[in-house]
Amino acid sequence: MKLTILGCYAATPRTITNPTSQLLEIKNQMFLIDCGEGTQVQLRKHKIKFDRINRVFISHLHGDHFYGLVGLISTFMLLNRVNDLHVYGPKGIKEIILLQLRASGSFTGYNLYFHELESKESEVVFEDDNVIVKTIPLKHRVYTNGYLFKEKNTQRKLDIVAIEELNIDKCYYQKIKSGGNITLDDGTIIANEELTFPPNPEKSYAFCSDTLYDESIIPIIENSDVLYHESTFLESEAHLAEKTMHSTAIQAATIAKKANVKNLVMGHYSTRYGNIEIFKEEAQTIFDNVLLADDGREFEF
Amino acid sequence: MKLTILGCYAATPRTITNPTSQLLEIKNQMFLIDCGEGTQVQLRKHKIKFDRINRVFISHLHGDHFYGLVGLISTFMLLNRVNDLHVYGPKGIKEIILLQLRASGSFTGYNLYFHELESKESEVVFEDDNVIVKTIPLKHRVYTNGYLFKEKNTQRKLDIVAIEELNIDKCYYQKIKSGGNITLDDGTIIANEELTFPPNPEKSYAFCSDTLYDESIIPIIENSDVLYHESTFLESEAHLAEKTMHSTAIQAATIAKKANVKNLVMGHYSTRYGNIEIFKEEAQTIFDNVLLADDGREFEF
Repeated sequence: MKLTILGCYAATPRTITNPTSQLLEIKNQMFLIDCGEGTQVQLRKHKIKFDRINRVFISHLHGDHFYGLVGLISTFMLLNRVNDLHVYGPKGIKEIILLQLRASGSFTGYNLYFHELESKESEVVFEDDNVIVKTIPLKHRVYTNGYLFKEKNTQRKLDIVAIEELNIDKCYYQKIKSGGNITLDDGTIIANEELTFPPNPEKSYAFCSDTLYDESIIPIIENSDVLYHESTFLESEAHLAEKTMHSTAIQAATIAKKANVKNLVMGHYSTRYGNIEIFKEEAQTIFDNVLLADDGREFEF
Repeated sequence: MKLTILGCYAATPRTITNPTSQLLEIKNQMFLIDCGEGTQVQLRKHKIKFDRINRVFISHLHGDHFYGLVGLISTFMLLNRVNDLHVYGPKGIKEIILLQLRASGSFTGYNLYFHELESKESEVVFEDDNVIVKTIPLKHRVYTNGYLFKEKNTQRKLDIVAIEELNIDKCYYQKIKSGGNITLDDGTIIANEELTFPPNPEKSYAFCSDTLYDESIIPIIENSDVLYHESTFLESEAHLAEKTMHSTAIQAATIAKKANVKNLVMGHYSTRYGNIEIFKEEAQTIFDNVLLADDGREFEF
């Protein structure tokens, strides 16, 4: 599981920082999460093949989280994209995008699907054989969802010694990894457990931005491998966090601790701060495994 | 008159080039012309004070000319702008911007005025004591206007020798510059022409992007000091220019020559070309005073 931070600063794009967007690579799929202005240029900087992005998840309709989406959709169109593109986001996003495409007299040559969200409960928004994606309802000034990405059906690992001892042909390996038993030429049935080790645990990534401190998300994100939790403010501006419905570093760390996640990645820093290391210092008074997002940073989990 | 090119490439923003946006400083006013994605970051790079931009002119509703506008308007809001902002552009632009501001639950603290255009004839869209701005109807795939910016009421220049000889007090200088006659203490009336030289000619800047080759714009832009004319393609791709309703370098130069402008600035280059110098070479087979726009370039006229 690989996380690339394309942008992780609050409010306005600047020469040195970008608004929220990140790319999650999980089970060989690439999910784009939020799409602030300039995201397509950040994708180019990271040499991401546009065609690998088939699903975009938008948390909420504040500009620093989605103003880059219409440009990305248009660029995909200009580059003669063929693959379907799925956009998940709050109700209203479809009208905003289509109004602009209509005004430009342009229509995508690829299929563009919108999955508009309005539920206040967590719901599954995407699922295939490998990954399940659920919303994490957040508390912000407008309707907002985080997203929980979770691997599923992780395959069992081959016990090569046992397999070779029984002279099982390689063409059966995929069946074994998927949990199947094997019948030998003499009719003996070998149980899958004798040929495999248990799979790696299914990894999960919880993206939570933007939000007020809210313990009601804990049951959804509990035990995640990685939690990205916004930390717009330091403790000295805790009053602003409450007023603007954002979180502080300490609040993000408190959620991480109470949800028993393995790693906390912090971001969505207010641009008022010159040095983001202080976010880590404050968070680590509560929770140890803190990583700081920064534009261009990549994390492997 | 100073022209700053914030972006001058067609279609999609890239790491090394920006879509169309430029800043015209004329008679101490700053006009923003077009506003592709990333324009606000380009403005920051050039250290332009956001508060000096009070009027934005949008040529047409293709993304590479206006997808940066909603973000700019939002940033102005976040920075607690006070000054009014006027946006001139095709009918439809107001709905696009307001739909997005509404979705974000945000409203500008400053007055935001839209001047929506739908006339197919050239019309005056802004005028004050110093500048007049007229549309230049262009032929493109969607409704498009260029804009002609023209200085007005340029003041006469003082003939200091004549003035001092007559012992005229400095408090009359403004009146003289504005064209007024002076009555001396003995009742003699001195005609303005005896105290002044003719004013500098009124400078003008014609912005024409995007457009098919179209001679019908010539009467509007005739004798301009500077013509910015799009040249998306080189002669080798003339067939694409016609198909996509853009112009070639030679077509831009032909318009410049027939309109008898003093300088031609070319831009809106297709990103397929590695070397823009060839645009100049091709154009100069028709017209001499060719300047190449490029992102970050500044021209004083």
